Amino acid sequence: MRILVTGAAGFIGSALLCRLLSDVDSGDVTGLDLGDAPPAASGRRLSWIRGGLDDRAVLEQLGAAPFDLAFHLASVPGSRAEAEPVLGRRVNLDASLDLFQLLAQSRNRPRVVYASSVAVYGALSDAPVGVQTEARPAITYGAHKRMVEIALADHTRRGDLSGIALRLPGIVARPRPVSGFGSAFMSELLHALAAGERYVCPVSPAATAWWLSARATVDNLLLAGRIDCCGTLQLPALRLSIAEVVAGLARLYGPERSALVTFDPDKAIEAVFGRYPMLDVRAELALGFSHDGSPVELIRNALRA
Amino acid sequence: MRILVTGAAGFIGSALLCRLLSDVDSGDVTGLDLGDAPPAASGRRLSWIRGGLDDRAVLEQLGAAPFDLAFHLASVPGSRAEAEPVLGRRVNLDASLDLFQLLAQSRNRPRVVYASSVAVYGALSDAPVGVQTEARPAITYGAHKRMVEIALADHTRRGDLSGIALRLPGIVARPRPVSGFGSAFMSELLHALAAGERYVCPVSPAATAWWLSARATVDNLLLAGRIDCCGTLQLPALRLSIAEVVAGLARLYGPERSALVTFDPDKAIEAVFGRYPMLDVRAELALGFSHDGSPVELIRNALRA
Repeated sequence: MRILVTGAAGFIGSALLCRLLSDVDSGDVTGLDLGDAPPAASGRRLSWIRGGLDDRAVLEQLGAAPFDLAFHLASVPGSRAEAEPVLGRRVNLDASLDLFQLLAQSRNRPRVVYASSVAVYGALSDAPVGVQTEARPAITYGAHKRMVEIALADHTRRGDLSGIALRLPGIVARPRPVSGFGSAFMSELLHALAAGERYVCPVSPAATAWWLSARATVDNLLLAGRIDCCGTLQLPALRLSIAEVVAGLARLYGPERSALVTFDPDKAIEAVFGRYPMLDVRAELALGFSHDGSPVELIRNALRA
Repeated sequence: MRILVTGAAGFIGSALLCRLLSDVDSGDVTGLDLGDAPPAASGRRLSWIRGGLDDRAVLEQLGAAPFDLAFHLASVPGSRAEAEPVLGRRVNLDASLDLFQLLAQSRNRPRVVYASSVAVYGALSDAPVGVQTEARPAITYGAHKRMVEIALADHTRRGDLSGIALRLPGIVARPRPVSGFGSAFMSELLHALAAGERYVCPVSPAATAWWLSARATVDNLLLAGRIDCCGTLQLPALRLSIAEVVAGLARLYGPERSALVTFDPDKAIEAVFGRYPMLDVRAELALGFSHDGSPVELIRNALRA
């Protein structure tokens, strides 16, 4: 079994990489990223390619060895892609399609797990959201994610890839300093209260968002690599208000922590990241995909080293 | 007013080009195609670029002069794109996005009319079809058309293009010999019966399809270039059975023409091109988009030189 992980030095990628390397049955792993291999990942089963998928030489290096399973996580974050749409297109769209085209040439119909995003939905209404919800991306990052989902589905239809796209919500807790993501406050809130620091929250206590830990995300990615199902899925996540998350932090770290947070809602952030409706992920739960279970488990998983 | 037409030597493109050049108010027109300018199109208002949008030199030539309005019709036909998906991607997807990126750089927010296709829908049910129908493309050509619609909508959202995508049905009557299109039989039937030739029809008399003439298509494209509305629209078309079309031909050319057609339904063609449901194009009709009006007018428009 030969496995490829793109974006393997990133927040999710490095966690996935470590899990793959700790599982003795998972085979040889090639990590690809602009940066170095994460310090925690090593061993003779790991090969590392430093570079980007938009580099012809990197693609040729990948093409030399066929893969059975690829986790495609590499991307330019949403806020940067919005500011630099030509870069966003080259990395998030063109390079993704180049990777798929390359993997499709191997003739062994590799499994491809693509990290898509809830950014494909665009503005959310009060109605429950799931893969049956019409995708109306409102940022360039989301438009490219949606386009790549369509391209992957077409490769699957053609029979040259076995593709599954998972729509990821904002994942917690990104390491500090958290930047480049509109949902940064979600990670910051967890870090600050866990560390006993004061935190000024840019959304109100009633603001609801979708919460999923990196640990649960890796569980879901690994499941997606194992199962037969192809297509596009919405990852489950806990829908929690800030008040519920703060209560969870107080249960874990002590009731006095609640007093560390004050609220100074930013209308723009609250509008985009504070009104998430229910998720409709019944089909995904039936397939075995899962969220963290409870606010306390979410926080434990999110802040675990 | 500077106008660009890509695919300007093609079936629809040449008809559009001639109409633009015959309208004294329409401004200067640049035609782009792999082939020569159509013989019917000429005049000092026409510039011609021979080449493809996937040629860097052609893009640079286009970039030298900003356009106010672009009709993007150039594409590799569906059956060829299915057989050669890498070519299909390069022309139907990548080159379309390159063109949009180029036009977006002009900073005058040009109007872009993109010829999308009903191929974006994929397999059709009995339910009426319109832009609210979920797009589930079942051929690579349709997947790329859908991806380009999303990219154009994102340029419009960003404010650097004013984009409108029109989903075209199979257009009649393509010049003989008709090839590269699964719907070729629709044009062949009109040509054959109008010429008094026998025709073996590969779908049954009850087979329903969407019928729109090139003339009405050009009317719709020109309207799309004029109006303010942005987004994706489904072009209206007559939904007719083969029996209704044959009856129309008989009314125009004489009742004996009906006897020229015999039926030898091909299950595969009938399944894809013979069960088209109603179109739901109320919003598009309200905007002034239109079909040919009646079977007789459709045939007249379709076979007009």
